[in-house]
Amino acid sequence: MMSTATSMTFTGVRELIEEANRNAVELMMEADPFWVDIGLARNMIPGMKEGMLLHAGPPIQWEKLSGPMRGAIIGASIYEGWASNEIEAERLAASDQISFAPNHHYNAVGPMAGIISPNMPVFVIQDRKHDHKVYSNFNEGLGKVLRYGAYSTEVIQRLTWMRDILAPTLKKTIESVKKQKDGIALKPIISQALAMGDECHNRHNAATSLLLRDLIPHMMESQIDKKDILSCYNFINQNNFTFLNLAMANGKAMCLAAHDIKYSTIVTVLARNGTDAGMWVSGLGKRWFTAPANVPRGVWFPGFSEADANPDIGDSAITETAGYGGFAMAAAPAIVSWVAGSAAYAVQNTKKMYEITQTKHRYFLIPFLDFQGTPTGIDIRRVVRSGIVPTINTGIAHKLAGIGQIGAGIVAFPMEMFKQALKSYAERYVQ
Amino acid sequence: MMSTATSMTFTGVRELIEEANRNAVELMMEADPFWVDIGLARNMIPGMKEGMLLHAGPPIQWEKLSGPMRGAIIGASIYEGWASNEIEAERLAASDQISFAPNHHYNAVGPMAGIISPNMPVFVIQDRKHDHKVYSNFNEGLGKVLRYGAYSTEVIQRLTWMRDILAPTLKKTIESVKKQKDGIALKPIISQALAMGDECHNRHNAATSLLLRDLIPHMMESQIDKKDILSCYNFINQNNFTFLNLAMANGKAMCLAAHDIKYSTIVTVLARNGTDAGMWVSGLGKRWFTAPANVPRGVWFPGFSEADANPDIGDSAITETAGYGGFAMAAAPAIVSWVAGSAAYAVQNTKKMYEITQTKHRYFLIPFLDFQGTPTGIDIRRVVRSGIVPTINTGIAHKLAGIGQIGAGIVAFPMEMFKQALKSYAERYVQ
Repeated sequence: MMSTATSMTFTGVRELIEEANRNAVELMMEADPFWVDIGLARNMIPGMKEGMLLHAGPPIQWEKLSGPMRGAIIGASIYEGWASNEIEAERLAASDQISFAPNHHYNAVGPMAGIISPNMPVFVIQDRKHDHKVYSNFNEGLGKVLRYGAYSTEVIQRLTWMRDILAPTLKKTIESVKKQKDGIALKPIISQALAMGDECHNRHNAATSLLLRDLIPHMMESQIDKKDILSCYNFINQNNFTFLNLAMANGKAMCLAAHDIKYSTIVTVLARNGTDAGMWVSGLGKRWFTAPANVPRGVWFPGFSEADANPDIGDSAITETAGYGGFAMAAAPAIVSWVAGSAAYAVQNTKKMYEITQTKHRYFLIPFLDFQGTPTGIDIRRVVRSGIVPTINTGIAHKLAGIGQIGAGIVAFPMEMFKQALKSYAERYVQ
Repeated sequence: MMSTATSMTFTGVRELIEEANRNAVELMMEADPFWVDIGLARNMIPGMKEGMLLHAGPPIQWEKLSGPMRGAIIGASIYEGWASNEIEAERLAASDQISFAPNHHYNAVGPMAGIISPNMPVFVIQDRKHDHKVYSNFNEGLGKVLRYGAYSTEVIQRLTWMRDILAPTLKKTIESVKKQKDGIALKPIISQALAMGDECHNRHNAATSLLLRDLIPHMMESQIDKKDILSCYNFINQNNFTFLNLAMANGKAMCLAAHDIKYSTIVTVLARNGTDAGMWVSGLGKRWFTAPANVPRGVWFPGFSEADANPDIGDSAITETAGYGGFAMAAAPAIVSWVAGSAAYAVQNTKKMYEITQTKHRYFLIPFLDFQGTPTGIDIRRVVRSGIVPTINTGIAHKLAGIGQIGAGIVAFPMEMFKQALKSYAERYVQ
């Protein structure tokens, strides 16, 4: 068996694999995610209970948690009123009163620490093609924010405002949208944004603009207090990362559609919890393949360096898994000033990712490559065979709890995960 | 003298020319245009009188006017109430009751036919660095619109709505803006838009988005009827060319700052009236150098072809004169689907324009060329010496009055203009 996995010929099943993979990427590309609703996590996410915290990446024990993940858990415990300070929160988290689970086990995604607690508002995204629902939390902006492990009073106050003002305002807005259409279609926004310099992982200037252009008339038409409209508008308008969480939910919906296809070697989850990186493969169910997460190569905020950096963290690599983000860097040359590198590097990274993917995306096109589709559908066979691992761009958190973002950069997933997955695939399918 | 002009060495004055040109492009790049006001042309444009029509391009007689220019003049005469139909309007225009003058003689610019009549609303743009004021009309959208020579009832009704609803709404909006800041700064919008796939002549998807993001809170805050806010928002939101007229006024302000510099060989106006192309040179005052306008090489709307096309028309080449538009095509690979060509062509055109320009723009950068500045400051000496003429992208009007836009494409200015200008320059400066 091992020799079959290593030689990667899979002679007997090659046709079955090819067909399964064609099927998987077809389902992925044809998924049609719409933002359709908003509500608190405990009301919207099936299975979400009091005392439960969802987090980014593969499963992990409290003892192994990195600083930013600990910080975000402390902040969420204070936000929920479970604890009134850091010490209480840490004690609680180490006890069995709090349960932890990966977002992906609940069809949810969150950037960086990705903590979703029961009373946080979430976007509800429906894949109108396959009728799945997926979820993401709201974006808080940059700097001192929960998802980067900060939990100061300003962080908790912002989260409270997001629950009490932002979420109800956006709820009324999406209800107004739904009087006219099925919700906000996310694929067309991403598709346009790729022609406007976004790659839709770390650059969302265009996507957030397009989202606002869609929402404005509905914000104005609905019966919302003018003061609230203005405060919510200003909050979104000053934060070009607003669309990130929708881009991730879109990616999750696309990848979910491609998941659980027998024989498929296509990756359907790539995620990191700040300690480990992990992934799912379509034909291998919900089994996680993990390896220690790498530390990104970054551009550092003043006063910080690689020595301060936490290993890679967040569910946001779902964007690359679905064929955009770092894989579409050639569409977003301006991102290079944010994550290091030259325009040529951006093109080169996209071109490299074609070597490990099944197809070129039908809807996500790169004008600079004469409207070639983005590299879509990571195939674990191609990764192991080529020695090329998926490379993404990402924000970087300080390794200590309570500090926040210290930079942004480029990071590769560990090859070890892919080798494990291929071995497991061989054991399962190649007899 | 002629031999001096032809050899283009200008030995005795070379240092003076170089210094004048450095000075001219410095003034051009450091101009700081703000949209500060709105009003009817007759109240805002100094010298604008009843019975006067401003038009795009160099001066021209009624008899020589092309179809789209005639169509736009007919439409403007009906809009103004000077005539009630096409026949009356044509008779009037041929008489001496109507006077025609180029927009540029009044520091104004207009796309395509560029007709500005006394009761049309105009943007007032102030260069806050040099305190010049310049003007542009409003954008009507695409298709059957006055600037492409259409004058049907829907065209006139739209113009009337723009005067009665859109202009007062935007006036209140800009007044609200001015309670907080000096107006809407245009250079930062263009600068960001170039990193978002616009070149700011024929693609303004990002610039219009950014403009809307700036305006929205002021539209909401000011005491404007909600119905009017919504109708104006929707009008702008469905027309990504909204920013074109502001991009042109910005270009005019920048070029005006660079105009009238003794010894300078930098071009400060490039414009076409649908019959002739014409230009000004900084050191040669308001003398027009003209030659028959070329017909663009285009992408045609269904049912149309080059045989239907009018020669090049409009003041919009002021964007290229100021260093963006077609000169920044490398920033806007998506434009190639609109004006023909490949992404490589877009890059190639920008690179070629470096050969005929004085400098790389300090604020307008192209991410794809690793943030190199756009080619800025066309030097007539370099054009004649290299044999490379400024190449721009443009909309294309039907050659008959009353039809409208039939495509978009690429067009070069005639070399003849530059040769004339160089000869004239030699006569003036090289004794």
